[in-house]
Amino acid sequence: MTTRWTAEALAALDAADPLAPFRDRFLLPEGVVHLGTASLGALPKATPGALARRVEAEWGHALVTGWNRHGWSELPTRVAAAIARIVGAEPHEVRVADSTSVDLFELLAAALDLRPDRRVLLSERSNVPTDLYAAQGLVALVRGEVELRLLEEDEPLAEKLDERVACFFVSHVDYRTGRLHDLRALAAAAHEVGALLLVDLAHSAGVLPIELRAANVDLAVGCGSKYLCGGPGAPGFLFVAERHRTMIRTPPSGRMGGADSFAFEPGYRPTPGIGRFLVGTPSILALEALRVGAELVAEADLELSRAKATALAEAFLSLAEERLAGFGFELASPRDPEARGAHLAFRHPEAGALAQAFLARGVVADVRRPDLLRFSFAPLYLRFVDVLDAVERMEAALREGVYRDPRHALRAEVTRAAGPAVRSDLLPGATGGG
Amino acid sequence: MTTRWTAEALAALDAADPLAPFRDRFLLPEGVVHLGTASLGALPKATPGALARRVEAEWGHALVTGWNRHGWSELPTRVAAAIARIVGAEPHEVRVADSTSVDLFELLAAALDLRPDRRVLLSERSNVPTDLYAAQGLVALVRGEVELRLLEEDEPLAEKLDERVACFFVSHVDYRTGRLHDLRALAAAAHEVGALLLVDLAHSAGVLPIELRAANVDLAVGCGSKYLCGGPGAPGFLFVAERHRTMIRTPPSGRMGGADSFAFEPGYRPTPGIGRFLVGTPSILALEALRVGAELVAEADLELSRAKATALAEAFLSLAEERLAGFGFELASPRDPEARGAHLAFRHPEAGALAQAFLARGVVADVRRPDLLRFSFAPLYLRFVDVLDAVERMEAALREGVYRDPRHALRAEVTRAAGPAVRSDLLPGATGGG
Repeated sequence: MTTRWTAEALAALDAADPLAPFRDRFLLPEGVVHLGTASLGALPKATPGALARRVEAEWGHALVTGWNRHGWSELPTRVAAAIARIVGAEPHEVRVADSTSVDLFELLAAALDLRPDRRVLLSERSNVPTDLYAAQGLVALVRGEVELRLLEEDEPLAEKLDERVACFFVSHVDYRTGRLHDLRALAAAAHEVGALLLVDLAHSAGVLPIELRAANVDLAVGCGSKYLCGGPGAPGFLFVAERHRTMIRTPPSGRMGGADSFAFEPGYRPTPGIGRFLVGTPSILALEALRVGAELVAEADLELSRAKATALAEAFLSLAEERLAGFGFELASPRDPEARGAHLAFRHPEAGALAQAFLARGVVADVRRPDLLRFSFAPLYLRFVDVLDAVERMEAALREGVYRDPRHALRAEVTRAAGPAVRSDLLPGATGGG
Repeated sequence: MTTRWTAEALAALDAADPLAPFRDRFLLPEGVVHLGTASLGALPKATPGALARRVEAEWGHALVTGWNRHGWSELPTRVAAAIARIVGAEPHEVRVADSTSVDLFELLAAALDLRPDRRVLLSERSNVPTDLYAAQGLVALVRGEVELRLLEEDEPLAEKLDERVACFFVSHVDYRTGRLHDLRALAAAAHEVGALLLVDLAHSAGVLPIELRAANVDLAVGCGSKYLCGGPGAPGFLFVAERHRTMIRTPPSGRMGGADSFAFEPGYRPTPGIGRFLVGTPSILALEALRVGAELVAEADLELSRAKATALAEAFLSLAEERLAGFGFELASPRDPEARGAHLAFRHPEAGALAQAFLARGVVADVRRPDLLRFSFAPLYLRFVDVLDAVERMEAALREGVYRDPRHALRAEVTRAAGPAVRSDLLPGATGGG
């Protein structure tokens, strides 16, 4: 079988790649192909220095005056401005703070407040569980007054999206399969029945063009640790369309979201704008790391990022189907690249052990139990030649016999190959929102 | 007038101070006396290196495998163990995550869940406003089903603490006056009527002995950025007494608090222990900075810390009353050192401008509008001689005429003295919970 994805062809693609210069702005480990960005983006080279300045020159020397002298107070707004460019919003529609889960909880509560006569929250059963948990927590808090309704797989939206729904909340890109939703169509469907659309951008922000304003999305949240390269446990962000933001109340409310955070008034009086979505004081260290990542990602043309991520994934899929045929992988993502985000998932009964074996050979992928291997294609630091490199390493791992007996031999061999630092009960791609 | 607080006497106290060696473990700016710890603790020397390791060696090189290989997953537990020692709790009763405001919101909601037949949250009108805002947000969310009741100043607790109260929530140390509550007495009073006691430890954790278990406190929250030296916007922490923790539900709930955070189950099933209070993924950078601070503070004997902080404050008060008499300061804190925490507050009509003038002379203090100057005495890095130094600098600022005309000349002179980097509309001691 001949392939168009030869080493020469891939190198030619790299040579012509307008995004190629971005790679040099990341610190990438030697001998590793990082296909795990859907869990954690790579480290920008500028981050360590930027953090060191915040810590030593600012916290250490300016102490509490750093809030004014060194712009700590404005840092959430700066990061929001970069993220606004990435998601097609105005800076005053975006707020960076807390975790994605807390942000989602806040917006679900706000949605109920915006639609006080409606008591249904609608989502998909396949939505990332942490998002469903946030809704379940809210339902429990209001003691059953609110109902969480879930669409089953392939169930038409119209079956459950009716005039009792306050808010329909979905993931833009499915954390497992990578399926991509059409935001404009979903917003239109929600608005048709007077509901709000809330989108989780965890697996799309920074890797494909998003036009929240143009698509008429009402509310959104996102994650800073994946394609925005803000580091492990980076703060989340939230978006509230301008038309809603002065009407919205925010539980939990806190001092930093007050109209005057120094007034220490006993009654909460939210700031008129998006700032009301600040609750407590945000971590300046976490925000600074996210600032560096988001500003770097915002420099790239997201149309180019999308095209390159798609081409990388297509090359990977072709090569994997050629080289890894017969090893039991089954594509779990849409085959049409227009119908998915920037990752590919494959089902395999030994997904966890295989991820360990690939990791031992320098290919970082994620596992989503029970049986999904997830490979994500970050266009700012992956080269086309890396795709071939990764598939060759994976093929070598598979051919070397680790796959002879899936039930017994594999786990032992993999654990040995990976060395004692890797616990066999914990998989790579361990955490981060979904 | 003679004083016992001569330079020689103070130097002798420093020479005999068992906590003196701690000072060398902080990076303190030259020529500055830091009396602003009630807003932001100083930078431990170990913090920059610890952060650099987390960033470069771990995030940069291990990528997502850092969650297992470098113990990121266990970091909240490690920090919780240090804080547990500081607040008189067991490690499994403490969880570090989110901001203090979000933590408080979670625990107020949990308290309502633990006392489902009671719908009153009781606090003090003088409580730090951000805590009242969290309760107001909760009241709004459950649409008026819950009532927030406030004790006025000097109103006896028995007037409003009755059998309709689910939870009485107070600050251990008042963010303005420094007044110290007796936790054991408050817990007994709350339990007498079947209510829960929730304490905000923002201004006490790390600077005086706290025995949450012994005092029979039910719930608590605290702040990482003040006496725990975790940096600007450090994560908060929460405490749930062992007897409650398996009964408690947690809105907002999230994946990280699930029994199996990798199972991605559609139904939220909280982990049996305190871990359920993790919601989203916590920032590893913010946690690492807090780890260094909290572990350092936990090394000190808190009885010694308390004794030294009190002695520092007493010296400051005596010297201020001698040297600054006639400049219009009025003590706003209890005079009895047993009745207050580790800070002193003074009322002055020009508090904001004076803080700027003192800052220009190297004395960092906080302002709480409209008229409070707050000086806090961190025993691990302040020397007794620093107290005299600070009062002398303050006296010099006052005598040099900046106080000639409070309404006009002062602001202009202060702004000039402080230089263009200080915005006259923003005060030092700008932010951080209260």
